[in-house]
Amino acid sequence: MQTSFHVHSPTCGCSPDLRATGETDARPRVVIVGAGFGGLSAAKALRKADVRVTLLDQRNHHLFQPLLYQVATAGLSPGQIATPIRTVLRDQKNAEVLLGTVTGVDKDHRCVRMGGHEINYDYLVLATGARHSYFGRDDWESFAPGLKSLEDATELRKRILLAFERAELEEDASARQRYLTFVVIGAGPTGVEMAGSIAELAHRALASDFRAIDPHSARVVLVEAGTRALASFPEQLSAYTAKQLEKLGVELMANTKVVGIDEAGVMLQGADGAVAPMPSACVIWAAGVAASPVAKWLGVDGDRAGRVAVDAQLNVAGHPEIFVLGDCALAQDAKGKPLPGLAPVAKQQGEYVGRLLTLFRKKPEARRPAFAYKDYGALATVGRKIAIADFGTLKLRGFIGWLAWSLIHIYFLIGFRNRFSVALDWTWSYLTFQRGARLITGPVDEVKRPVHADGERAGRKAA
Amino acid sequence: MQTSFHVHSPTCGCSPDLRATGETDARPRVVIVGAGFGGLSAAKALRKADVRVTLLDQRNHHLFQPLLYQVATAGLSPGQIATPIRTVLRDQKNAEVLLGTVTGVDKDHRCVRMGGHEINYDYLVLATGARHSYFGRDDWESFAPGLKSLEDATELRKRILLAFERAELEEDASARQRYLTFVVIGAGPTGVEMAGSIAELAHRALASDFRAIDPHSARVVLVEAGTRALASFPEQLSAYTAKQLEKLGVELMANTKVVGIDEAGVMLQGADGAVAPMPSACVIWAAGVAASPVAKWLGVDGDRAGRVAVDAQLNVAGHPEIFVLGDCALAQDAKGKPLPGLAPVAKQQGEYVGRLLTLFRKKPEARRPAFAYKDYGALATVGRKIAIADFGTLKLRGFIGWLAWSLIHIYFLIGFRNRFSVALDWTWSYLTFQRGARLITGPVDEVKRPVHADGERAGRKAA
Repeated sequence: MQTSFHVHSPTCGCSPDLRATGETDARPRVVIVGAGFGGLSAAKALRKADVRVTLLDQRNHHLFQPLLYQVATAGLSPGQIATPIRTVLRDQKNAEVLLGTVTGVDKDHRCVRMGGHEINYDYLVLATGARHSYFGRDDWESFAPGLKSLEDATELRKRILLAFERAELEEDASARQRYLTFVVIGAGPTGVEMAGSIAELAHRALASDFRAIDPHSARVVLVEAGTRALASFPEQLSAYTAKQLEKLGVELMANTKVVGIDEAGVMLQGADGAVAPMPSACVIWAAGVAASPVAKWLGVDGDRAGRVAVDAQLNVAGHPEIFVLGDCALAQDAKGKPLPGLAPVAKQQGEYVGRLLTLFRKKPEARRPAFAYKDYGALATVGRKIAIADFGTLKLRGFIGWLAWSLIHIYFLIGFRNRFSVALDWTWSYLTFQRGARLITGPVDEVKRPVHADGERAGRKAA
Repeated sequence: MQTSFHVHSPTCGCSPDLRATGETDARPRVVIVGAGFGGLSAAKALRKADVRVTLLDQRNHHLFQPLLYQVATAGLSPGQIATPIRTVLRDQKNAEVLLGTVTGVDKDHRCVRMGGHEINYDYLVLATGARHSYFGRDDWESFAPGLKSLEDATELRKRILLAFERAELEEDASARQRYLTFVVIGAGPTGVEMAGSIAELAHRALASDFRAIDPHSARVVLVEAGTRALASFPEQLSAYTAKQLEKLGVELMANTKVVGIDEAGVMLQGADGAVAPMPSACVIWAAGVAASPVAKWLGVDGDRAGRVAVDAQLNVAGHPEIFVLGDCALAQDAKGKPLPGLAPVAKQQGEYVGRLLTLFRKKPEARRPAFAYKDYGALATVGRKIAIADFGTLKLRGFIGWLAWSLIHIYFLIGFRNRFSVALDWTWSYLTFQRGARLITGPVDEVKRPVHADGERAGRKAA
């Protein structure tokens, strides 16, 4: 095991205290790339280990992704689901946090390249997560944004709220209907949650806010190429979800593929092969994901989604010092089935790596136990007070499912202040149907409209 | 008084109810441009008037500007100080809200041009506020952003937080000091509040968050061309403020002019005429403001700051149907002294216009009373628990001033939910020194750095 020696130089940037003592840090260095569920859990699990932890992320905050759709649908504010990484690790003396974008890994020299720096490691943990995949149609991305970061969420929020504002001003009935048609692509948990939430936003929260349009007339269409929504859940919960979506006013179109997306809307292909356009000003992508470019950094092949295959100790083949975990890794459960890209998986993997390295530092000869994922179940919410929860033998649905869903999510939020704030907001919107985060922020492009020279202008001119 | 007749057409966009009855709206129409303190107060004050109110704004939210500096310094989130305009006016049946950017006014045809629409009015209220003025040096704007909108605030927040992140990674000592030097230009209330808040952020909230740098070493410089900070306040309160700023670690440089701003920092000219550079990565403009282009729209001359002169009834000369109020208007108090660009002024003016038009609608022959501003005093805060309040005979300072400041600001916030949420956050940060909104959102440019080929790299490589 290589040890790191640090020699102070005039510009080495170490804190004055450390420099004054002339000490060098002889502990092995664990470099963790990514402060999502996987990376942050690993960092925290190393708090008692005799190592130096360096956590790198291109953003300054840890994001609670399961609730991102609530920011996108104006239910929560960004600050309620994000915590500065430095705040989380402030009291962990062996940890440092650096902000920057990693561009590559040098396995031979054991360093990570980030913004002109080369950051050496003794152990490397890659937990950089996933981005959206458009199945080769990257030109679709600008028309149908996905939901992976806070910027995605506020951009979607802007598009959704702006659609109603534009509709209010729109005189042409079919143009108005295009503004009031929302298409969500992909009926997995994210798609179902988005669609249900937009439907509630339109049919409840905004109901009395407009004069020219009736938000109830907004269409929310959920397109799914497979046969049912929430295909990863048991069939009965899947069927229950479909019924709830219908009650909320979401139109679920199963067995329907998206074959085109542009400024005007989407092109849909039904089971019979017929293709038809659906005009929409707001298309949301909740379908494919692909791993961040970890495979490229490591010079290995990724699977179809770009994920790096790892063994039972979450190592890359031939590199016991490199761990890959979370959505960018292809790990298996005890039966050899691939583990899904879920938050609890990344979290448990991060904790495993932290414990492993802590153990290894104390007893280098110890046998490395394999990672074993404990599947506690899965949850998905459908609107403001309905959720489904699959805990194996115990299945919940309806309001009690929603209680379980909210308690579990609040529990896993990081930070007491965030928990309190989110609990407050959910109680508020439960009681009032209102949403506290309905801001359009960021640049608002002017709608290009011809100026009518004639006197007839809908509702805006004196006769 | 011209009345508006609306004739339904196939694309007139009126609600189905109204169209079904075939009714036309014969009430006079009051068009209000701007949903800040002035415009929104006017709209609300018209709730019982027999008129139709159309409120236009280029954003969908009303912004509580006095607390914008807290968003910029990561103390509050955008959603806590902004309320959707539609929410505020939801239950006001005679009011409609339209989102768009007004580009001109046609006084002869009595209509407002907005995004290809022409919106007729019987009465027009212009309350579009102010923007920043760089005294003719518009090239300074990209280096020294101001604080007028939520986008300004989150951009500033990003720059401030990023400066610490960059400093943590910076090996060169003078480059690091440039990152850790914050320059606020203009020691009016906004500048004082910003400077004090950044100082607390650096010296308290972030104190334990970094390893390579010591945030205490951050410099916060407040530059003022005049002789004292808070020149609009009585001298004793001004002197008290200067002492408090010093305690917080803010360097107040009075009698100092800014003669240049660029990527590297600012050029300052002292009272003796000597010019010296001050390297800084974060320069904030809190000095000049100028009115929005109302004067241009009306085809009249504005004053030096672009404000439109109005008479005692807040009308433009020769146009009893056009009112201009708030920061874009030049109105006088009873003694003929110009009214300042403060929130309470705009608010009272808006309420006055609303009452006036309500009265006028009932009794067209009634005499129009003049607008009389009731000066209840002024407040400014210096850091987390100190403020000054000038209520005329009663002057408060210190913690009791801060209590008054926070109670008054919470009272004037719009929306119970916002009040509760802000009160909670202030209590939290008062007790813990923490700031709940420390997010860097939006694109983060990579710092362009040369890669060092030699082995000597501060703290990041094995020997």
